[in-house]
Amino acid sequence: MSQLPESRRYAVLGSGALGGFYGAKLQQAGFEVHFLLHSDYEQVRQNGLWVESCWGDFHLPQVNAYASVEAMPPCEGVIVALKATQNHLLPRLLPPVLAEKGVVILLQNGLGAEPEIANCVGPERVVGGLCFISSNKVGPGHIRHLDYGSVLLAEYGPGYAPQGITPRLQQLQADFQRSGIPTSLSPDLMEAHWQKLVWNIPFNGLSVVFNADTQQMIRDPEARALAEALMQEVVEGAAACGRRLPPSLIPEMLANTEKMVPYRTSMKIDYERKRPLELEAIFANPLRYAQQGGVQMPRVEMLYRQLQVLDRLNRGIPAFSPTCG
Amino acid sequence: MSQLPESRRYAVLGSGALGGFYGAKLQQAGFEVHFLLHSDYEQVRQNGLWVESCWGDFHLPQVNAYASVEAMPPCEGVIVALKATQNHLLPRLLPPVLAEKGVVILLQNGLGAEPEIANCVGPERVVGGLCFISSNKVGPGHIRHLDYGSVLLAEYGPGYAPQGITPRLQQLQADFQRSGIPTSLSPDLMEAHWQKLVWNIPFNGLSVVFNADTQQMIRDPEARALAEALMQEVVEGAAACGRRLPPSLIPEMLANTEKMVPYRTSMKIDYERKRPLELEAIFANPLRYAQQGGVQMPRVEMLYRQLQVLDRLNRGIPAFSPTCG
Repeated sequence: MSQLPESRRYAVLGSGALGGFYGAKLQQAGFEVHFLLHSDYEQVRQNGLWVESCWGDFHLPQVNAYASVEAMPPCEGVIVALKATQNHLLPRLLPPVLAEKGVVILLQNGLGAEPEIANCVGPERVVGGLCFISSNKVGPGHIRHLDYGSVLLAEYGPGYAPQGITPRLQQLQADFQRSGIPTSLSPDLMEAHWQKLVWNIPFNGLSVVFNADTQQMIRDPEARALAEALMQEVVEGAAACGRRLPPSLIPEMLANTEKMVPYRTSMKIDYERKRPLELEAIFANPLRYAQQGGVQMPRVEMLYRQLQVLDRLNRGIPAFSPTCG
Repeated sequence: MSQLPESRRYAVLGSGALGGFYGAKLQQAGFEVHFLLHSDYEQVRQNGLWVESCWGDFHLPQVNAYASVEAMPPCEGVIVALKATQNHLLPRLLPPVLAEKGVVILLQNGLGAEPEIANCVGPERVVGGLCFISSNKVGPGHIRHLDYGSVLLAEYGPGYAPQGITPRLQQLQADFQRSGIPTSLSPDLMEAHWQKLVWNIPFNGLSVVFNADTQQMIRDPEARALAEALMQEVVEGAAACGRRLPPSLIPEMLANTEKMVPYRTSMKIDYERKRPLELEAIFANPLRYAQQGGVQMPRVEMLYRQLQVLDRLNRGIPAFSPTCG
């Protein structure tokens, strides 16, 4: 794992609630940042980015905005903050914008995206990033950051083999910290993903089934019991992948969820906006990895099936009838 | 099991979609029927019952309508067609209206209600009835019968021990058939209930979770697979109670559901009307009986928990927080 060049430019692919926020923080701190935009391109090119943040509001009147990757300069840090459901675009988007000695920093939940990105840029150029943040895009180029905001970075290695803490990770951490983003490092990306899945699988999934926020769920004894049973299965799934999560994790997460302000999960927001749900990364791939390790997660699987149905009905996607071939 | 007297009067407790329909059919055929009403009492006393039915519409301008059981004569056949969630009223409602040699005919889905009724009138005075009908109450004293309509009757015995076909059952069957109600008899009430639960547990439960009708579910591959997995668990639950259901049952039920016109289940209708769901009879008690026989039904249990949460949120019932005692 080589170090990154001393002079680092950042690209942000997917300049929404996550990418728009972290990219704006980096630019605010003086880094050169290049934003790929889609529907908001004209607005952001003309008016920049507005960030309402619990850490302090700010406006960047001028940002480097692009409508296509071909117009962007090669960057040493390419932050991918698309929805996981758009990852099929990456083989086309990444090559033009990733500098030779650069690295992709994937800010996405769940398992299975990094190996695909590694397939197109090489495993030595992939870093995983987990965001602990409550933020929304509330309008074109307008981001609202409500709570939290930390990032955890870890190197990807083939088959999710732990890569330890590299100099490169420390460079990225320094840049993020200088930009006011609390950033920690993990030697083991897969363990970090599983740990976050222990919360994301129950609370993202059940928030859609119950049409409820975190407080409504944690306060209902049955919803809480179901969340806990799902968490237990995820811990067993992690163990099947050789990751032993601490026994205190589940009670701690439940206690923290009690203390959180009522929170609409990202999957519930996607559902409300009739966007496709991130089911592959958060459900299908973890189920597959656990199964390869010999562990079934029956409740997780049932929730996954339910979410597939709800997602299809929500977006009016006709499911084929198995009797009509 | 004694025979019923030759001269039989019928009472109907719960004159809604089921009780209103079957009671009206009995009266139309010439039987003396006495209807207990609650919110519709004044309307029905003055204007009788209107039945729109796929078997032919009819109007009974004059019915015996009562606002309290104390005013009703003792009847030999007391049809209970309340929602199962109202069964706590029965110890008060039944004694005044049940003739000494009379029988309670409970038209309800699920397990566990007959033993409670037996506790208050004696097990030898309880008959279970399963209705295969699509009907709704669309206004006060106004019932719409959409499809199907048959009834299956079976004797209740302590611990749901099979009682065979009694002369009394045949008398009831004759009365129902004379009223145009296709009526079959079963020697084993518990087996009949389990058989119906094989359909009711998945399709009633999932229709609430998915906010979907039967066609939407049966056409979606994941919903169908989930329904089938739930059905399999229910078959195993039945086996734990010593009831071996035929292996052809599940494929037949799935095929029939495909052919059905799109159908909103009764639980979905209750949910839409923000009425309490019949979760005890259809979920909690079957889970308990299966467990007593050593069988867990994990998917059924998860669905049950989800429905408890949805039911509470739907009706705005605050769940206690386990951390606040």
